Amino acid sequence: MAAKTRLERDSLGAVDVPEAAYYGVHTARAVANFSVTGTTISQFPDLISALAAVKEAAALANRDLGRLDDKRAEAIAAACREVRDGRLLDQFVVDPIQGGAGTSTHMNVNEVIANRALELLGFERGDYAELDPLGHVNIGQSTNDVYPTAIKICLIGRLRTLIAALERLVSAFSRLAAECQDVVKMGRTQLQDAVPVTLGQEFAAYVTLLREDCERLGKATGLLLESNLGGTAIGTGMHGHPDYPRLACAYLREITGEAIVPAADPIASTQDCGVFVEVSGVLKRAAVTLSKTCNDLRLMSSGPSTGLGEINLPPVQAGSSIMPGKVNPVIPEMVNQVAFEVMGGDVTVALAAEGGQLQLNPFEPIIVYTLIRASAHLDRAVRALADRCVRGITPNTERLERGVRDSVGMATALSPELGYATSAEVAKEALASGVPVWEIAVGRGLLSTERAGELLSHAGLVRLARPSSSGSSRD
Amino acid sequence: MAAKTRLERDSLGAVDVPEAAYYGVHTARAVANFSVTGTTISQFPDLISALAAVKEAAALANRDLGRLDDKRAEAIAAACREVRDGRLLDQFVVDPIQGGAGTSTHMNVNEVIANRALELLGFERGDYAELDPLGHVNIGQSTNDVYPTAIKICLIGRLRTLIAALERLVSAFSRLAAECQDVVKMGRTQLQDAVPVTLGQEFAAYVTLLREDCERLGKATGLLLESNLGGTAIGTGMHGHPDYPRLACAYLREITGEAIVPAADPIASTQDCGVFVEVSGVLKRAAVTLSKTCNDLRLMSSGPSTGLGEINLPPVQAGSSIMPGKVNPVIPEMVNQVAFEVMGGDVTVALAAEGGQLQLNPFEPIIVYTLIRASAHLDRAVRALADRCVRGITPNTERLERGVRDSVGMATALSPELGYATSAEVAKEALASGVPVWEIAVGRGLLSTERAGELLSHAGLVRLARPSSSGSSRD
Amino acid sequence: MAAKTRLERDSLGAVDVPEAAYYGVHTARAVANFSVTGTTISQFPDLISALAAVKEAAALANRDLGRLDDKRAEAIAAACREVRDGRLLDQFVVDPIQGGAGTSTHMNVNEVIANRALELLGFERGDYAELDPLGHVNIGQSTNDVYPTAIKICLIGRLRTLIAALERLVSAFSRLAAECQDVVKMGRTQLQDAVPVTLGQEFAAYVTLLREDCERLGKATGLLLESNLGGTAIGTGMHGHPDYPRLACAYLREITGEAIVPAADPIASTQDCGVFVEVSGVLKRAAVTLSKTCNDLRLMSSGPSTGLGEINLPPVQAGSSIMPGKVNPVIPEMVNQVAFEVMGGDVTVALAAEGGQLQLNPFEPIIVYTLIRASAHLDRAVRALADRCVRGITPNTERLERGVRDSVGMATALSPELGYATSAEVAKEALASGVPVWEIAVGRGLLSTERAGELLSHAGLVRLARPSSSGSSRD
Amino acid sequence: MAAKTRLERDSLGAVDVPEAAYYGVHTARAVANFSVTGTTISQFPDLISALAAVKEAAALANRDLGRLDDKRAEAIAAACREVRDGRLLDQFVVDPIQGGAGTSTHMNVNEVIANRALELLGFERGDYAELDPLGHVNIGQSTNDVYPTAIKICLIGRLRTLIAALERLVSAFSRLAAECQDVVKMGRTQLQDAVPVTLGQEFAAYVTLLREDCERLGKATGLLLESNLGGTAIGTGMHGHPDYPRLACAYLREITGEAIVPAADPIASTQDCGVFVEVSGVLKRAAVTLSKTCNDLRLMSSGPSTGLGEINLPPVQAGSSIMPGKVNPVIPEMVNQVAFEVMGGDVTVALAAEGGQLQLNPFEPIIVYTLIRASAHLDRAVRALADRCVRGITPNTERLERGVRDSVGMATALSPELGYATSAEVAKEALASGVPVWEIAVGRGLLSTERAGELLSHAGLVRLARPSSSGSSRD
Repeated sequence: MAAKTRLERDSLGAVDVPEAAYYGVHTARAVANFSVTGTTISQFPDLISALAAVKEAAALANRDLGRLDDKRAEAIAAACREVRDGRLLDQFVVDPIQGGAGTSTHMNVNEVIANRALELLGFERGDYAELDPLGHVNIGQSTNDVYPTAIKICLIGRLRTLIAALERLVSAFSRLAAECQDVVKMGRTQLQDAVPVTLGQEFAAYVTLLREDCERLGKATGLLLESNLGGTAIGTGMHGHPDYPRLACAYLREITGEAIVPAADPIASTQDCGVFVEVSGVLKRAAVTLSKTCNDLRLMSSGPSTGLGEINLPPVQAGSSIMPGKVNPVIPEMVNQVAFEVMGGDVTVALAAEGGQLQLNPFEPIIVYTLIRASAHLDRAVRALADRCVRGITPNTERLERGVRDSVGMATALSPELGYATSAEVAKEALASGVPVWEIAVGRGLLSTERAGELLSHAGLVRLARPSSSGSSRD
Repeated sequence: MAAKTRLERDSLGAVDVPEAAYYGVHTARAVANFSVTGTTISQFPDLISALAAVKEAAALANRDLGRLDDKRAEAIAAACREVRDGRLLDQFVVDPIQGGAGTSTHMNVNEVIANRALELLGFERGDYAELDPLGHVNIGQSTNDVYPTAIKICLIGRLRTLIAALERLVSAFSRLAAECQDVVKMGRTQLQDAVPVTLGQEFAAYVTLLREDCERLGKATGLLLESNLGGTAIGTGMHGHPDYPRLACAYLREITGEAIVPAADPIASTQDCGVFVEVSGVLKRAAVTLSKTCNDLRLMSSGPSTGLGEINLPPVQAGSSIMPGKVNPVIPEMVNQVAFEVMGGDVTVALAAEGGQLQLNPFEPIIVYTLIRASAHLDRAVRALADRCVRGITPNTERLERGVRDSVGMATALSPELGYATSAEVAKEALASGVPVWEIAVGRGLLSTERAGELLSHAGLVRLARPSSSGSSRD
Repeated sequence: MAAKTRLERDSLGAVDVPEAAYYGVHTARAVANFSVTGTTISQFPDLISALAAVKEAAALANRDLGRLDDKRAEAIAAACREVRDGRLLDQFVVDPIQGGAGTSTHMNVNEVIANRALELLGFERGDYAELDPLGHVNIGQSTNDVYPTAIKICLIGRLRTLIAALERLVSAFSRLAAECQDVVKMGRTQLQDAVPVTLGQEFAAYVTLLREDCERLGKATGLLLESNLGGTAIGTGMHGHPDYPRLACAYLREITGEAIVPAADPIASTQDCGVFVEVSGVLKRAAVTLSKTCNDLRLMSSGPSTGLGEINLPPVQAGSSIMPGKVNPVIPEMVNQVAFEVMGGDVTVALAAEGGQLQLNPFEPIIVYTLIRASAHLDRAVRALADRCVRGITPNTERLERGVRDSVGMATALSPELGYATSAEVAKEALASGVPVWEIAVGRGLLSTERAGELLSHAGLVRLARPSSSGSSRD
Repeated sequence: MAAKTRLERDSLGAVDVPEAAYYGVHTARAVANFSVTGTTISQFPDLISALAAVKEAAALANRDLGRLDDKRAEAIAAACREVRDGRLLDQFVVDPIQGGAGTSTHMNVNEVIANRALELLGFERGDYAELDPLGHVNIGQSTNDVYPTAIKICLIGRLRTLIAALERLVSAFSRLAAECQDVVKMGRTQLQDAVPVTLGQEFAAYVTLLREDCERLGKATGLLLESNLGGTAIGTGMHGHPDYPRLACAYLREITGEAIVPAADPIASTQDCGVFVEVSGVLKRAAVTLSKTCNDLRLMSSGPSTGLGEINLPPVQAGSSIMPGKVNPVIPEMVNQVAFEVMGGDVTVALAAEGGQLQLNPFEPIIVYTLIRASAHLDRAVRALADRCVRGITPNTERLERGVRDSVGMATALSPELGYATSAEVAKEALASGVPVWEIAVGRGLLSTERAGELLSHAGLVRLARPSSSGSSRD
């Protein structure tokens, strides 16, 4: 027995849609046309919610402007609120990668809202004479102003979530930095022994850099607040009401709590994807920071025997089917891979942005698809990094401190006492013989045993690593 | 009421897994550790199947080598065959983006196979004393040889499918090329009128280029036939049997029908991702061809009034909520976006490949994730392009031919008759006045009406476009 | 006869350098080691100048701190001023692509300054006992704080120059926008006729977008003001004076006029390349805007006969050796290519930034090489675009306006008068018959001849394109 | 006093060119139009030479076809030979980044050849009535067939040079591999101790991978042999002679020694850049291999005290101005950076290839610019890597072998003797106590002192690392 259907029409003819469906003919055609990912836009509930917020704001603005009667406006707004609450999510069935500049996603939303509003008004689904997805839900609107506005609202939320995740990581590293503030180790430049640093300083540097990324992401949210609502097809606002942009944005601010403002030049705004290029760039910056940090964590925890063995990552799963006891840095490795994905996605976004022509960029669907995934994957990766890795890191304090004492790099530390030339000579001997620099210096009578002891004591090493720790003008 | 569970142990301790689960402790930990995409590897049934094929080949090889008794070997092989048939697909629950170089995917497979084999032997799931995911299913194997081998088998299949899709598109363009072989139009270089060409020649050029991509993809499958099976952890084959690589590959050939051979240098093979970089590069090449082709289709079908209006794409959905009758090139736009995704993915693959260190590249999961998606999305996009767009293209024959006759570009066609200098002068006048070149030439007495008629007849224009059509040494 | 040489020594031994050379042993070794591009850093005089500015600031700060005597400090500062004035440029002979985190560039600068200062003090070049490239010129400094600080100063200047170029382009487009404010044309979305717009609005949109890029570039300069001077090798400031960062930055502000400030966390600052990733991202954003704009210019000027033919680009060179009278959009094509280079360079920068390890990123040379070239190429491309293309653009006003009148897109304009359904029907007939929409509407009695005349008059069309032109609340 | 000039004309008017110049009006305009890089195409002598080879082949083919008289043909051919010999190089003055699909480069070549041929015939430079850059030198040709053919010839040479450089590196690594064949070390996966390997095996793996890259580059040269000569403007061969493609390619084979053949579909060939995308992809693959290899070298040579310290790179310059005795891995770092440049360039090439429209890709100049630089930089980087780094690498044999003996990873080696479970237990104790695995095993009576001695002897360790060294079926 076939499922019951209803017949819907558009300019290309008639199509059967399931009787139970809230979507209609435009959605049905789009489902047939686009089957790239095998998934649907329902995987992005916040995008759907943002679209419903825009449609609600539009309905209320149109009501105020006398373009939509109160009854229909209220029904539409009520339907929008339901969608924003996550209901009817299974009705958003188009593929996220689609041609048409987002028209299919937009039509899907228009149809679901119309049919739900029809129900709320006591009509049948599909009774578009009473309330039409285009004629009523979409009055004075166009995909080209609705869709990018919704994308921006969605991305603002995504960036906020990511910032929160990064702050979680910042807090994990901060705690570590405090715990390890006196754990001295040899710092390296170009992977070669340089001068002492503390593990605390290293972790604190990650804190600084991640905080900068948070700040950059925060600034990026500000770029997303400009909306071209009311520009209609190409930003000229043809057939639109001059008060609509202001009113619609006001309602949108109220609904979303975000400080959305009308674009100063809606024509420019309608064709431009520069803001998405920049948001992608800032996500990439964060990805680069995270990848470098995870590279460091993997390097510092290399071992256990023939690696650097400076820190231990908490074991979260067995590492090998063939090697007993092996534990691998799987969480940082996962973060690296997400970073690589984000960095590749940045190229995709640039390509899509560059490909726009004349009054519109038809490639926004791949942009939003890429950016939502980038921010979501980063978000989850960062939380795992904080909770399943960084929180459980422990230092191999003794090994680290011994490393400093025995390092040829100590020649640099001694150079103010011995002079650069003597220092270099001692370093050379140390390198050749394997005898620590300080031992040679004491042996040659260049350094008293007391002074050596002082310098090589834990407190002495901390002073070398943190010369400004007793208060410098820089801090 | 809580679901029933069984307790499983690994080196980190004990974990409860659902009693009904075929996977075990390693999988459970991986699920907890990796939640990036919110999806599971079960979305790639051919990857699971390829893994099961490798495990089956390994079991049979180990049986022959006396390392696994017949009973267990048969049970394992039977379980593998079930997995290859697509059963138990819901048991593959780890996230495709994972740390650990694919260990979690591999462990998931080992555990499901072990538990299914246990059932087949009449034991309980979890009764690993009888048949162990590591001790039996994984004898003489390592993630580092099993996983890349399975990836390669999976990708060979994906490339084959994509080639078939491209051939479908080739066939659609070939038909069009034949239909339009005498449709004359003005060819353009740098978007400026150049010399005549036929629409058939244009479509035939797409056929040529897509066939080249098919050929390149075909060559790429050949690069994927080398397997490092038997190399175990790092390719040295420690604890492995010297006959294992040969035997395991022989069984794998039998099972998959692919001409898999042992790698000449398994140590190199284990750490290298060059082949994936190259496969990605070839996918990108195809993406570039497709994107350029779709750019052309969108350009040629631009209009209907103020565009080039050379061809009509079949309408597949209504184009605008606000503009009546508008139809957009949504299928080519979708293909463009997939191409952008693939081009970005190519960067991801290169980053991951470059990031490998010493004896292993731990970033293969993102490589396979990216390449499977790239080939799958291209495959579906290409099929839609063939079936929903190219098949239905029609030319605006008259407009095209009129375009040639009236084009300033005809000055080039007349240059052998008039000389370059006169031709250029006539072109200049034509450009200034809007009067066609040939009319000016006739008017000035440079060309007889008869000769003009001959040149501008349909047959004359075809000759200009296809000078070699009456048989040249080039053809 | 061999050129005269002097012998210089470093820790690896002795090397002959030309007697006339201001550089020394470290430079000589670097020249032998690095020969990648076949060019030298002297091609970037502003980078050399920025390095000299840092060295001068350092010398003055060290003098104030009592670490350098007045005589030597003055000589060093004088030598730095000469270098900043562009003298001795031919002495900067190392290849810009070099290993060592910029050490070779830095050593080249130290040596040239030392030898010139020696001369100024009346000593021989090479007489390092009197004034040493390391012992005096480099006191309390490290490549790792000097080099990135100089890069930042150099890039600030480059961005400023680029902003000025973009403003030149903005001004060219602004003039065009004003000239074409009433030139009506059909706007397109997805290359399909949409609704009317004016050419002035189109050019004004470019103005808006380019101004946004200027603003973003301006903000990016602000990110470059933080210096890690005084951090020495790894940011800890070992052997440094606590007052040095403040003092050195103060002198640097004085010398450069830029508001350089000490980094809050010099350890983080020393290892981080995030700021360069972001600067590259903003350059890429500008490149994307420019490329899209040039794509539009090429599209709008396509023709002359079988293209859109909306505007004419000024001819700047003959287009073809074989086609008389052909003129090509060579300037926009050149800009496109520079944009592609910048977009690729953005990947290079991200790769280099990601590759840093522990306390330092050794890959800054390729970053600065890429960013200087990107900004320089963009700068020159933009100036050519402004001066050799945009300034000379002329509209094909009549053709554009006729295009609007005859376009099927006019159905949208009539839809408020005729209703959406009737409009769509008329559009369909227009498309099939080739008869303009308005003619059909008048013929069917749906529109009076007067109303049609009003709507289709120049003033009527301008009103359609610029509904808000008579003052809306949006403006 | 102003330099003497002669007046030359083209369709845009008259231009003064220096009397001494061999180039003419088209070149002069191009120099004015394009000033992006500040350099000229003369930096690529092999590109100039390849262009001259094509022009010579064309002249000879046209002579044979009776389109060019013997005298002029001989003069043109003689001029071409001079250019191929590297004379007149300073006359190639256009910027490599240029609009116009290479027309300016091509015109520069046509003009220089014409003027030199005029001289050879006893005429004045500029006396184009006697021999014309277009009318004679360019008969039956177009930039669109000449330029891509020359690019391909140039790239074939570049790839050959790069292959030779890689073979030099292969030979350096081969020698090292032989020297270190018995140097045992701990292999690592995911930077964690895995199982033993020999340094010789590691270096041999690089040999294998670099050889694969050579093979892939070799295959890529084969893709470059197809020429669209004779296709003229858009590949249709309008106004061309049907025998020209065959003849011109025959002469070109003779002149260059490369097996150039006419393209089967010159229309497809004229618009396609797929081959360049693929060549770029193969260069990127080599870059990835090199970068990974250099990452390994830097990692293995990290130290000297607190790094892995497995090998020593030969010191080629002093590493630090502040740290006595520091030596850095500057050569590998340089190679890494070149690899990053090539990987970014690959994106540029893809963007340019994707941007082609209809019958031509106008962006070939940036493609050839990018690919020539990529191959040249790789070539020089690889030679430096071979000669200044790999040749001088020495192993820290004792440290490496001690590392194996003391590593927890030895638990894996012992697992066949002790069983997996006991092995794991021993490993755990070793990790906790720092006592070597074998010592614990002996202490617990699990292993006899004799057996331990055997296993841990140099010969025993080699056997572990190279189980197949005594002849396995795999070899």
